[in-house]
Amino acid sequence: MNAYSIIDKKKKGIELSENEIMEFIEGYTFGTIPDYQMSAFLMAVYFSGMTDRELKVLTCVMRDTGYIADLSGINGIKVDKHSTGGVGDKTTLVVGPVVAACGGKVAKMSGRGLGFTGGTIDKLESIPGFNTEIDEKTFFDIVNRVGVSVIGQSKDIALADKKMYALRDVTATVDSIPLIASSIMSKKLASGSDRIVLDVTVGSGAFMKDEEHARELASKMVAIGNMAGKKTIAILSNMGVPLGRAVGNNLEVIEAIDTLKGNGPEDFNKIVKTFSSYMLTISDVCKSIGDAEYRVGEAIKSGKALEVFKEMVRLQGGDISYIDDPGKFTKASCIYEVKADKDGFVTSMDTEMIGRISGMLGAGREKLDSVIDGSAGIIVCKKTGDRVENGETLAVLHTNKKEEIPRAEEAYRNAIVIGGSRVEPVPEILGIIE
Amino acid sequence: MNAYSIIDKKKKGIELSENEIMEFIEGYTFGTIPDYQMSAFLMAVYFSGMTDRELKVLTCVMRDTGYIADLSGINGIKVDKHSTGGVGDKTTLVVGPVVAACGGKVAKMSGRGLGFTGGTIDKLESIPGFNTEIDEKTFFDIVNRVGVSVIGQSKDIALADKKMYALRDVTATVDSIPLIASSIMSKKLASGSDRIVLDVTVGSGAFMKDEEHARELASKMVAIGNMAGKKTIAILSNMGVPLGRAVGNNLEVIEAIDTLKGNGPEDFNKIVKTFSSYMLTISDVCKSIGDAEYRVGEAIKSGKALEVFKEMVRLQGGDISYIDDPGKFTKASCIYEVKADKDGFVTSMDTEMIGRISGMLGAGREKLDSVIDGSAGIIVCKKTGDRVENGETLAVLHTNKKEEIPRAEEAYRNAIVIGGSRVEPVPEILGIIE
Repeated sequence: MNAYSIIDKKKKGIELSENEIMEFIEGYTFGTIPDYQMSAFLMAVYFSGMTDRELKVLTCVMRDTGYIADLSGINGIKVDKHSTGGVGDKTTLVVGPVVAACGGKVAKMSGRGLGFTGGTIDKLESIPGFNTEIDEKTFFDIVNRVGVSVIGQSKDIALADKKMYALRDVTATVDSIPLIASSIMSKKLASGSDRIVLDVTVGSGAFMKDEEHARELASKMVAIGNMAGKKTIAILSNMGVPLGRAVGNNLEVIEAIDTLKGNGPEDFNKIVKTFSSYMLTISDVCKSIGDAEYRVGEAIKSGKALEVFKEMVRLQGGDISYIDDPGKFTKASCIYEVKADKDGFVTSMDTEMIGRISGMLGAGREKLDSVIDGSAGIIVCKKTGDRVENGETLAVLHTNKKEEIPRAEEAYRNAIVIGGSRVEPVPEILGIIE
Repeated sequence: MNAYSIIDKKKKGIELSENEIMEFIEGYTFGTIPDYQMSAFLMAVYFSGMTDRELKVLTCVMRDTGYIADLSGINGIKVDKHSTGGVGDKTTLVVGPVVAACGGKVAKMSGRGLGFTGGTIDKLESIPGFNTEIDEKTFFDIVNRVGVSVIGQSKDIALADKKMYALRDVTATVDSIPLIASSIMSKKLASGSDRIVLDVTVGSGAFMKDEEHARELASKMVAIGNMAGKKTIAILSNMGVPLGRAVGNNLEVIEAIDTLKGNGPEDFNKIVKTFSSYMLTISDVCKSIGDAEYRVGEAIKSGKALEVFKEMVRLQGGDISYIDDPGKFTKASCIYEVKADKDGFVTSMDTEMIGRISGMLGAGREKLDSVIDGSAGIIVCKKTGDRVENGETLAVLHTNKKEEIPRAEEAYRNAIVIGGSRVEPVPEILGIIE
């Protein structure tokens, strides 16, 4: 074991051996290599990069430092979907039931949100009674019966990632593509599914602001997944605008239910169709994307996807009357419309800022033990490419913190640019990497 | 104060402000910034480099974290010489007295050697009675009277450098030119002399193995010195072969005395003449290098430089009978000749390895409290460019550890290459950077 020579090799751009990566990562995770050597190593990786072979080894070593889920108690090929994050991202809530309705198996372990938006678990818990902490046997049973279940990630997976991420966060080494790729994939590989569809978001509301870097990240993650024996594809999706119209837990769950009922916003319908179709083809349920898209359309049209969702909610203890009547979801005490003060077209949006405003209204969580206000959030009425008339509603702010409205309104006005001529909106799907 | 954003800026290659550098270095030195942030910063500097302006600020901030010598009690312009290290480097022992004999002032605070060779202090202590721990007043008096005195560095200078160097040593960030330059110069700026002549060694026995990097390091150090208000020049010297013939404390002191008597090896004579002359011109004692070289020659020829050396030794308590009769120096119990086993020419030498062999024979120090064997070392008889006949002596090994001879002999044979045709030796001086 020689931590020094491993850092030195990486610094010089020499490929590390499997043993060297293993010694370094395990040494760090279990305390024999100090933080200061890991942070020098991480910075060297930032500059020198990693080969695909190194990345695969790094990711598998990280995976092996924690709990690895065994989903063999679930019949069939399990498919997972993971997003690199966005604003208004309620995709899992819809594609899970849609894929299940078409015969796929989605056994999803999900996290809570940290930062300006809630996570999938937070969103599901907006439905009164919904239990995300069910035992493994019940989880398996639900997936075997219904095709889909979503639970919280309670076990300590990829301990190395947890420790490395905390260090990256204070040493300016978060924005390294190999480190992001191995961090995400170490957890995905540990979560037990057989096939993986990655949603790599791009734009002002995503971690990756430009397509070139997003594409690079996607390629690395796909390479890691496939080399580690899990068939993986990535879909680049536009996060230059919020996804759909709803941002905030209850509002997003309502939009997800609307979408399952066939009444989703156009951009979100497109995302649901694409992701569901790739999840179905990668897990060998459908032979072609065309076939899959047809079946996805039918699953929604027929009401089957909605039934699957209701059944999952029921089996996890949730009150399904909220699904039949989303009007039952608690509403915020203060609902405020931000109106346009001129004519024009929305030419761009600072989507991350819109997420932050939603957090400011109560929909986010600063610390892991903060309480999210489920009813808080934003309905985005005008998005990039839309025509706006003076006095028209740009967005509706929902909050129980009335005093935040003036600041939130000002921030919202700063987050969207209204110009004189129309710009073509970016398509929802920017590319498929397989 | 935001250590994160300072690391991030450096990583992105954005120039840091004076305040940012000050906050980061002082924060680290005095414990508010942890090792793991400094090591990430150091690795970022390795890759992103530093502008001359940043380097000057960094170096001055590092200087200001420790004791700064005030040599105003010594009359005239004080000139310092510093070498980046080499094998057989006894230059200070000779140029100090030579410069003093010509009217210059050399008030030298020097370190002990760590690694495979002794430092100047270790070498002087080979002379029985020589005291390197005299008080400041005596030190000033000797320089005022004789023109030269050499003492140990007892005060804590450049605390930041001490702490940073220890961290660089375990995080593979030693070999960064801006970090080497600021480390050396922070100590030089703290040591109180008005003018600085740097000996930047190049080749197999130096830290810098190639001329390009040595030249870059030299330029950076010269820029720092001049920007910090101390006129500085650097001389690139060849360390592709050991300097002179003697390696090891007593052997080097004897060679230094021989050189002061006018009987030095040719390459070392050249080094002494060049360094002394530049020290005399930079400190305004001589108007031109030509003039200085003439006076240096006279100082040696006339015996004045030797007298100065004797006087310094006498005033620092040393036994000057050893200078009159170097035969008095203790000899090692085992003196062994390594003989050539074929005809040919020495075509290259692994000079660092020759230094290590000398250490193996007892002339080096592994830890700061190890004891050096003054009598151990090597006399190098054949150097690159020399003709060798089968059976001729390549080197003479001096040691009190007879059992080390076979290993040392084998290592020595591996450290020199004997080829069929002559190569032209590299000149002693490769360039002057001012």
